[in-house]
Amino acid sequence: MANRQTRDRIHEIIFEADTPTGKRFDIGLMILIVFSVIVVMLESSEEWESRYSGLFYVLEWIFTIVFTIEYILRLTVTIRPLKYALSFYGIIDLIAILPSYLSFFLVGTQYFVIIRILRLLRVFRVFKLGQFLTEGDQLRRAMIASRNKITVFLFAVTLLVVLIGSVMYLIEGGQNDGFSSIPRAVYWAIVTLTTVGYGDITPQTDVGQFLSAVVMILGYAIIAVPTGIVSSEMFEQAAMARKTNTQVCRYCAKEGHDDDATYCKYCGGRLNEEH
Amino acid sequence: MANRQTRDRIHEIIFEADTPTGKRFDIGLMILIVFSVIVVMLESSEEWESRYSGLFYVLEWIFTIVFTIEYILRLTVTIRPLKYALSFYGIIDLIAILPSYLSFFLVGTQYFVIIRILRLLRVFRVFKLGQFLTEGDQLRRAMIASRNKITVFLFAVTLLVVLIGSVMYLIEGGQNDGFSSIPRAVYWAIVTLTTVGYGDITPQTDVGQFLSAVVMILGYAIIAVPTGIVSSEMFEQAAMARKTNTQVCRYCAKEGHDDDATYCKYCGGRLNEEH
Amino acid sequence: MANRQTRDRIHEIIFEADTPTGKRFDIGLMILIVFSVIVVMLESSEEWESRYSGLFYVLEWIFTIVFTIEYILRLTVTIRPLKYALSFYGIIDLIAILPSYLSFFLVGTQYFVIIRILRLLRVFRVFKLGQFLTEGDQLRRAMIASRNKITVFLFAVTLLVVLIGSVMYLIEGGQNDGFSSIPRAVYWAIVTLTTVGYGDITPQTDVGQFLSAVVMILGYAIIAVPTGIVSSEMFEQAAMARKTNTQVCRYCAKEGHDDDATYCKYCGGRLNEEH
Amino acid sequence: MANRQTRDRIHEIIFEADTPTGKRFDIGLMILIVFSVIVVMLESSEEWESRYSGLFYVLEWIFTIVFTIEYILRLTVTIRPLKYALSFYGIIDLIAILPSYLSFFLVGTQYFVIIRILRLLRVFRVFKLGQFLTEGDQLRRAMIASRNKITVFLFAVTLLVVLIGSVMYLIEGGQNDGFSSIPRAVYWAIVTLTTVGYGDITPQTDVGQFLSAVVMILGYAIIAVPTGIVSSEMFEQAAMARKTNTQVCRYCAKEGHDDDATYCKYCGGRLNEEH
Repeated sequence: MANRQTRDRIHEIIFEADTPTGKRFDIGLMILIVFSVIVVMLESSEEWESRYSGLFYVLEWIFTIVFTIEYILRLTVTIRPLKYALSFYGIIDLIAILPSYLSFFLVGTQYFVIIRILRLLRVFRVFKLGQFLTEGDQLRRAMIASRNKITVFLFAVTLLVVLIGSVMYLIEGGQNDGFSSIPRAVYWAIVTLTTVGYGDITPQTDVGQFLSAVVMILGYAIIAVPTGIVSSEMFEQAAMARKTNTQVCRYCAKEGHDDDATYCKYCGGRLNEEH
Repeated sequence: MANRQTRDRIHEIIFEADTPTGKRFDIGLMILIVFSVIVVMLESSEEWESRYSGLFYVLEWIFTIVFTIEYILRLTVTIRPLKYALSFYGIIDLIAILPSYLSFFLVGTQYFVIIRILRLLRVFRVFKLGQFLTEGDQLRRAMIASRNKITVFLFAVTLLVVLIGSVMYLIEGGQNDGFSSIPRAVYWAIVTLTTVGYGDITPQTDVGQFLSAVVMILGYAIIAVPTGIVSSEMFEQAAMARKTNTQVCRYCAKEGHDDDATYCKYCGGRLNEEH
Repeated sequence: MANRQTRDRIHEIIFEADTPTGKRFDIGLMILIVFSVIVVMLESSEEWESRYSGLFYVLEWIFTIVFTIEYILRLTVTIRPLKYALSFYGIIDLIAILPSYLSFFLVGTQYFVIIRILRLLRVFRVFKLGQFLTEGDQLRRAMIASRNKITVFLFAVTLLVVLIGSVMYLIEGGQNDGFSSIPRAVYWAIVTLTTVGYGDITPQTDVGQFLSAVVMILGYAIIAVPTGIVSSEMFEQAAMARKTNTQVCRYCAKEGHDDDATYCKYCGGRLNEEH
Repeated sequence: MANRQTRDRIHEIIFEADTPTGKRFDIGLMILIVFSVIVVMLESSEEWESRYSGLFYVLEWIFTIVFTIEYILRLTVTIRPLKYALSFYGIIDLIAILPSYLSFFLVGTQYFVIIRILRLLRVFRVFKLGQFLTEGDQLRRAMIASRNKITVFLFAVTLLVVLIGSVMYLIEGGQNDGFSSIPRAVYWAIVTLTTVGYGDITPQTDVGQFLSAVVMILGYAIIAVPTGIVSSEMFEQAAMARKTNTQVCRYCAKEGHDDDATYCKYCGGRLNEEH
């Protein structure tokens, strides 16, 4: 289709974000994705759909065609098209365009085309865009580091919620429709302990209200735990990132210099310049 | 019933989690427990019970028989069966099977069998499973360390909530059914201050709404306190875990030495240098 | 009334908590106070009042008489009775008993006697009880240290809430009774931003719901601020408390020893014993 | 209008807060602004407006006249009136008075005059008032430093909320009016994940309630993230403020030296020893 040089150039534009053109391509693509997702969302609303169904139809096909061209380009410029096609992003890219074509053959219910909303996942590519990489990375590492603690915590919360739900079922079960079964009572316990508090199910007996109050005060103390876990982990990550300046003074061999230091703060000697 | 060797082997499988078989047994048991608890929960729902009452009946007896066999095995392989039977887990294990048998003799109301939900507590045994031990331990220690502060905090919140509730009772009491007594008004204050906000009781007068707004803004600042307590404690625990190495003193066999320690802080003996 | 020695002894019992008798007195008093407050709370409930009005009447007079005796004792054993009578606790102690006596002369409405709930403030005396003193103190110091930051924060939140409320009044005002005036819209903004979310006032237009969603996401990020302030301050306090071991080794003059250290971890020398 | 000296004196009073008179002027102005905003808010309430419309009218003109005099003074005493007039505060100061005058010519609807509520922004000037400057500054710097992490986080939350909303639309869409379109379902997801929990839209199917419970537990863990970010950043700021002393290098006049620094890290010059 194209000679090697053109192919390399296109590859650089659509797969990388180092060049200005590549960056502009990524940002343009992101805007297009966000727009197409907003259209899918509005299409699901009867009010909007009845008013603008023609416009939505046209827009949807424009998005599909652009994404299709992009998909074909991606397939042709990669050296291993199959590997790309079977990768996470390759599949997402295909899901982004397939439903529109399939809606010709299938009598597509409105529910089927919603799969197009997964286009949104393509936006994650934007994280290639420089400055967010480190941040996202630090967040992810803090999450991973606190994963085990969070698991233990969620496990304990689940136990607690089942026990609280069962007790409330025993107390309110007879008089209150909201607590008609243990699963519903557990649902109430989760709504309460997480401080969401819809109010669709609320205790009505005195004992039930008293117990709820205890659960809420408890939840107050419990909500502090995951925050404590993540805060502490986050701080560790930040401390680690800070310590990465491993510069050692040539004259006095001391460490711990700030990133913006030119001279050793202990002996006044000039710090290594190739740092 | 069984010779010593078989008994030891069974003991290893059902009481410990060090061997692969022991681990598999624990995981299998846990899955069974979770399933049996889900069945108990669904049984409480009229809709599910009316549809699948036969299936639930059969499943319940399968769980009961398996747990009974396990209980008998535990009793026979331990050297002191009575000590096990009266231990926390021994009692929980008995509670897990007893209600099903008793339902023969008693005209068991649906409320009675709910005690079987306590089976869930058996899952705590899973914490034997390696990797979660340290995490759970660190969490528990952070909780214990912040216990006193949390107590003082909850005490202050209780005082605050009673005072706020009383004032709101004075303001809204006459016009608003939700504030018909001080206990209800205190219940409202707890629902509000913890940011649960059911909305089953809401202020209706202008003054009441203004005071509520102040309470919420206050709650905003107050919710920060337990989080601060636990975060700071959590960080301490992490810092301590990081700072302390696993070196053991050759002279007094004590652990917990700092990384920069050359001498044992308990007996003054020189620490191993090859560390 | 009593000779000096008896007076000193009574003073020790009711004003201090150092002796076992003084401690027992304080705990007994606290239990009495909590009970009397519970009675005041239940009296406000029509249901309880109609059923147990006789019992409540008797109990109330028992509490009043005991508190009166205690008040007179406090007055007689202090060297400066007037100073005590005009102190914070002196006034609270008087308020605890006065309403019951006044209810003879005044045709006491139910609202008047509620002032007795202020008895609860007397419980703060319990903080004399040893172990909570340091904890409460550390909490209080963290609060005081972060007071200025919290003020700036609450000020910014107030500004934000007034602006959001005004915009929502413009958007929803015409169609939605909940947003019929700016003060009500501001009340809604506070309910939303603090994540209380009663649901008594909710946006109904598309634009209103969209703006609400933005406000909530914003609130999500904002709620992190006071927590951050208090956490950081709390950690400072803890770090400061930890550093208070100011022991210096006599042999190598180094600091930073743990509280449980007997020997210097740097040189192995014995640490000062009189510490 | 006035000779130079008077002008300088007025400038000092209304633009600065260093002198006692300047401070008193600022505080007086702030009180006036807050009062005028309260009047604008109450005017929007039909109940208050119908009762006190005359009083509000008079008050509004008093505020307008005072603010107008102040505006003219500010214009006359600054050396570059145009620069002030086009600055942020210059425009806010104009907006504070313009609507009242325009309401003569325009048939001012109630909605138009609400713009006067922007007067509130003038209060930000109060931050000149000494003690809050540093605090506000530290908060602002912590916010700026965590901006990127918060962006990544909010981006991830947005993705999550759209996906959760779409799934809930598929599950509840048919039976439940609250989930009649994806945008509404996303609105519900935001209300739930942020733990606001109005309860205006709640899941009604078993599957929907189960998924909601999972979302809430998830939200429980997620809410910890921004708090962790800000806490950790706040702590950094505090640590930095503590670590850095106010020493200024004699050679290069730069600040920001660590407490243990002997030499300037920027130019290598020896720092003042008598520090």
